[in-house]
Amino acid sequence: MRPYRDLAPSLRMIMTPGPVEVDPRVLRAMSLPILGQFDPEFTEIMNETMGMLQKLFQTGNRWAYPIDGSSRSGIEAVLTGLVEPGDRVLVPIYGRFGHLLAEIAERLGAEVLTMEQEWGTVFEPEAVIRRMRETRPHLVAMVHGETSTGRVQPLSEVGRACRELDALFVVDAVATIGGMEVQTDAWMIDAVIGGTQKCLSVPSGMAPVTYNDRVEAKLHRRKRIERGLRDSTNAPTNEGAFIRSNYLDLSQLQDYWSPKRLNHHTEATSMLYALREGVRLVLEEGLPERFARHRLHGEALSAGLSAMGLELFGDPSCKLPMVACVNIPEGIDGESVRRMLLHDFNIEIASSFGPLQGRIWRIGTMGYSGRKSNVLHTLGALEASLLRHGFGANAGAAVQTALDVYGRDV
Amino acid sequence: MRPYRDLAPSLRMIMTPGPVEVDPRVLRAMSLPILGQFDPEFTEIMNETMGMLQKLFQTGNRWAYPIDGSSRSGIEAVLTGLVEPGDRVLVPIYGRFGHLLAEIAERLGAEVLTMEQEWGTVFEPEAVIRRMRETRPHLVAMVHGETSTGRVQPLSEVGRACRELDALFVVDAVATIGGMEVQTDAWMIDAVIGGTQKCLSVPSGMAPVTYNDRVEAKLHRRKRIERGLRDSTNAPTNEGAFIRSNYLDLSQLQDYWSPKRLNHHTEATSMLYALREGVRLVLEEGLPERFARHRLHGEALSAGLSAMGLELFGDPSCKLPMVACVNIPEGIDGESVRRMLLHDFNIEIASSFGPLQGRIWRIGTMGYSGRKSNVLHTLGALEASLLRHGFGANAGAAVQTALDVYGRDV
Repeated sequence: MRPYRDLAPSLRMIMTPGPVEVDPRVLRAMSLPILGQFDPEFTEIMNETMGMLQKLFQTGNRWAYPIDGSSRSGIEAVLTGLVEPGDRVLVPIYGRFGHLLAEIAERLGAEVLTMEQEWGTVFEPEAVIRRMRETRPHLVAMVHGETSTGRVQPLSEVGRACRELDALFVVDAVATIGGMEVQTDAWMIDAVIGGTQKCLSVPSGMAPVTYNDRVEAKLHRRKRIERGLRDSTNAPTNEGAFIRSNYLDLSQLQDYWSPKRLNHHTEATSMLYALREGVRLVLEEGLPERFARHRLHGEALSAGLSAMGLELFGDPSCKLPMVACVNIPEGIDGESVRRMLLHDFNIEIASSFGPLQGRIWRIGTMGYSGRKSNVLHTLGALEASLLRHGFGANAGAAVQTALDVYGRDV
Repeated sequence: MRPYRDLAPSLRMIMTPGPVEVDPRVLRAMSLPILGQFDPEFTEIMNETMGMLQKLFQTGNRWAYPIDGSSRSGIEAVLTGLVEPGDRVLVPIYGRFGHLLAEIAERLGAEVLTMEQEWGTVFEPEAVIRRMRETRPHLVAMVHGETSTGRVQPLSEVGRACRELDALFVVDAVATIGGMEVQTDAWMIDAVIGGTQKCLSVPSGMAPVTYNDRVEAKLHRRKRIERGLRDSTNAPTNEGAFIRSNYLDLSQLQDYWSPKRLNHHTEATSMLYALREGVRLVLEEGLPERFARHRLHGEALSAGLSAMGLELFGDPSCKLPMVACVNIPEGIDGESVRRMLLHDFNIEIASSFGPLQGRIWRIGTMGYSGRKSNVLHTLGALEASLLRHGFGANAGAAVQTALDVYGRDV
């Protein structure tokens, strides 16, 4: 009986703000036979991965390891560990993923204070700091790169203020890690969550996080070893409200990632192989070189889009280098253009959420998808699709302009 | 710069109760290029996988889909959706993973009632039902196959009683799904959690679950659409206490898996490819044939171990077919034997937890690891290792006895 077909996905050019194309070396790593979770060869791979993540996060933190789940599992793990019921949590929101931070904190029983900025802009750090002085939150949670609007929020001043005002600072760097500077220590961020399926070009399914001693101290106060493993040597301190999740409990996860190897979940072997290979590729390329590449392709794409006669969405002074948001021209059916790109050109670009749904397209140049040929093909295909939809694009100009950015002579 | 080596894991024979060897077809599926999460080709793969999981769980339930995380993420998702603070939850415990169910329910604020059975045995269903009549729990949670002790718990009588007494019945079938009968509907189980890294021979990182209308009704009462996606058309009913997790919120996850495709996490593409291929292999083999194969290899292994002069642990009447628990002989250093198996023979067997730590070895014959050659090699290698450790094994008898079970003539 063969009722189900062989998997044979089309080879797409994935130009969204994630998930993006996976580097072939990462795909190959996932096809390696697995090891048992306590095999010394495997625990060595776990340790190596922690070391590599420290470099990726630009941190001296002891703890840098992945949560087994998609990016939001990492966000929820960090907030679950740090937010006790009744804690005041300040969330400045400038797009969809700020709302997610507030949502998770609310579900944890926090007193959530929000401030909102129009989509397409970011916060003046001083405005956030002013609100902090007024409200004295226990924790401030912010998104670094907001893919829903294509903006990037400066963080270092807020980080310094958090340290001064004794608030914990949690940053969602899902979209930016491996694609632009995320200076965990220099910006005084207490906990950072990265994403795999964006600038790292690893499939979704893991969320690397890092956190410092301030966070670890808080986790320690809330620690509770699970039944069946608890004994007199590891009894909880019970100083804080215990962590409500078992699966996303960082205090247990760090014991699993420590030399104690206290059993928790079974580590997702093949995803860890993928993450390790993805981060290895980043470190081989070099962080400054990789960030420059993301800037270059983002500039080429944006210049091409403008030359085509399209209008970029949002405040250019805070544009996320690896996401271009484009206003859908008047009278053009944005979804029809997206379908044409997918079905005729095998190219995927993204629509958007909430107030921007139907108003903008979002085009990513992240990780392995950030290649010159991808940018040129996408511009050419979008121009052709727009012409077919009756939009008077300046035929030929987009690709020529991008080639100019790349410095291509004949 | 190439500071980190190429991944090159040793090719182990993984004879533990999970994770186990991954079928090469599953490894290959993971190396396929990915699709975007809303690509129609990908949503079709999601739908196919739901249909295949319904067959695997032997259910007519509409909902059968994976949680993106290890097995315990599935357990926590189900309990998080079904347990409101103050709910009475009955957990009969006969090994480590029963403690985990109680632990998760406690963290959710349930009034947890436990009953314990000596490790190595299981419950008489009548004893559980009696306790249910006394305590009238809202929910009963049980482990089907307890890998920590190698036992399997009969479930159908308890399922019927739960229906009569209006309790929800949640079953952890992580160890048994795809290896022996798990009759979701016939046994009247309201929610079942399966595991990937055991009898399905897929790497850890996903937890397939299924649940019925009774569960869905409870989820509906507690539903809360997240900020940034909420509008007048999907306002919550607010009849029950809202679900405390966002990541593990089944009410949101089922919207993501439904034709609505309401955005939640980014589905773990490559892990879904792996799960689909693993379940496809199960359905191609046929459930009865696959269960018979698990029984056969379990019998051959156990017969061989006994012939070697080893004593099997636990009540034989409730032995889990695909896990053999063996008493470590007096005077033998169990960890030294395990190290020899790993380093000299590339074979991994497991130690145990809690009261059985240092007392038993656990040897699995799950999924792709359940092969005749694996069983014969493991018996031969264990015999050689025991002889080298001074245990007077009946040299040659183990493999010969296993060959007898396989019906091998010359």
